[in-house]
Amino acid sequence: MSQRYSVRLATIQDTLQTKVCIGLDPDPGRLPHHLQHEFGVIAGIRYFLEAIVDATLPFGAAYKMNFAFFEALGPEGLRVLADVRKCIPNDRIAIADAKRGDIGNTARFYARSVFDEMGFDAITISPYMGKDSVTPFLEYPGTGSYVLVRTSNSGASEIQEVRSHANEYLYSRVARLSTEWSSGLPGSLGFVMGATDTTALSAIRAAHPEVPLLIPGIGAQGGDARKVTDALQNGSGPYLINSSRSILYASSAHDFAEEAGRAARELRDLLRQ
Amino acid sequence: MSQRYSVRLATIQDTLQTKVCIGLDPDPGRLPHHLQHEFGVIAGIRYFLEAIVDATLPFGAAYKMNFAFFEALGPEGLRVLADVRKCIPNDRIAIADAKRGDIGNTARFYARSVFDEMGFDAITISPYMGKDSVTPFLEYPGTGSYVLVRTSNSGASEIQEVRSHANEYLYSRVARLSTEWSSGLPGSLGFVMGATDTTALSAIRAAHPEVPLLIPGIGAQGGDARKVTDALQNGSGPYLINSSRSILYASSAHDFAEEAGRAARELRDLLRQ
Repeated sequence: MSQRYSVRLATIQDTLQTKVCIGLDPDPGRLPHHLQHEFGVIAGIRYFLEAIVDATLPFGAAYKMNFAFFEALGPEGLRVLADVRKCIPNDRIAIADAKRGDIGNTARFYARSVFDEMGFDAITISPYMGKDSVTPFLEYPGTGSYVLVRTSNSGASEIQEVRSHANEYLYSRVARLSTEWSSGLPGSLGFVMGATDTTALSAIRAAHPEVPLLIPGIGAQGGDARKVTDALQNGSGPYLINSSRSILYASSAHDFAEEAGRAARELRDLLRQ
Repeated sequence: MSQRYSVRLATIQDTLQTKVCIGLDPDPGRLPHHLQHEFGVIAGIRYFLEAIVDATLPFGAAYKMNFAFFEALGPEGLRVLADVRKCIPNDRIAIADAKRGDIGNTARFYARSVFDEMGFDAITISPYMGKDSVTPFLEYPGTGSYVLVRTSNSGASEIQEVRSHANEYLYSRVARLSTEWSSGLPGSLGFVMGATDTTALSAIRAAHPEVPLLIPGIGAQGGDARKVTDALQNGSGPYLINSSRSILYASSAHDFAEEAGRAARELRDLLRQ
């Protein structure tokens, strides 16, 4: 019987004493020029990400791979995704940031693809299609399914902050319903909660204190690490603070990996305070 | 200047006199045994889908490729997707059923991947993350972006039928907002409207009579073609009725392509009445 995802994540974080998740979003336009020159785009991105993983391992509990950036590179990009995923060791968490959401029959294919074929530990899921788009992922023992609850982007509030008759925000409803959907299933339910809305973060943390959180939006998107950790006081579930661009593109020169390691260490230290 | 997607779709439908969209959702478990035996799974699926496209061309205005089924096959599956997409001729519509939805920066990568790299004419998009997850697709001239409004699966209503303070269903709000978001952009906005809720279909059609609709849920999912066309009376925008499994798996014997053609023709004729 595999260990529950939430327990495994908490153990990794205790051992390494870090809350940092490193987002691997390879933008070909920001690849260090010397790598592009030496290897070309595809092999250059593979080299770049493998070096980033290597340099940040002491400071990262998890790596989040954003599928869009790999898919935009065509079939070769999916090979890079598979190769880089294999560089993430078993004592770290590998998250498929795929934001999938489809009818049950299709969701089962996605779950098989991400967990069985590619060997990810966790995935991000969009809740708009409801229960049967979420539960096929939660049926996989030992995995984590982070449902989008309150996202960090500017346009999110027009949808996610709709208030129902009962005066409940849509994001609160999504959190409440997905907790019900996950009941009795072997996978761990988690929530994606953007760092840019600490009011929502605080409310959801208080209502669901044990649910693991994946928190993007620090750094380039404007979230403040200190305010985020303050908002998380009323809970015990393991949380991950994701940073992508601030770590990945800390330097575009030959020292890119060293600087990525430094940026990851700084974020780890900031979150420890 | 490329023709607007909605105009191009209407022209194709007028020429061919068909509303049928054929969903290409290759389930390896349902591949005709003789193909699997002769070619193996990957090449078998490629052969299968190319034969289906060939046999159904006289009756289909569009083909919708469900990315999950291809992604579940690994990087090779993405090659099959690219190859099969190339078999769909220019006087038909190729829809990427990818249900993407991510922050603006990422959405731009998805748009580039689907429209530029893979050459699809249209895509399906999840609206949960709001405006900046949708507009990067609508910025592509000559393409269509079908936003999920009311989907055909059983679990959808818990989310999509949330009623706001102002007594507006969430799906109606998504339709209304995305119409605002699309204003002035060169791409055509469309809606995904499941065939299983004809009340919603009728209401959305009346409120947005010119918006192109993509309507899944006929056949295996239980939607009734006659009730659907009745619900569409109060509008003029081009609509597509999608059928996947009923056409793809009409027969699992050597006559699979012939039977798929027959099933597509029957659906076309049914929708003409």
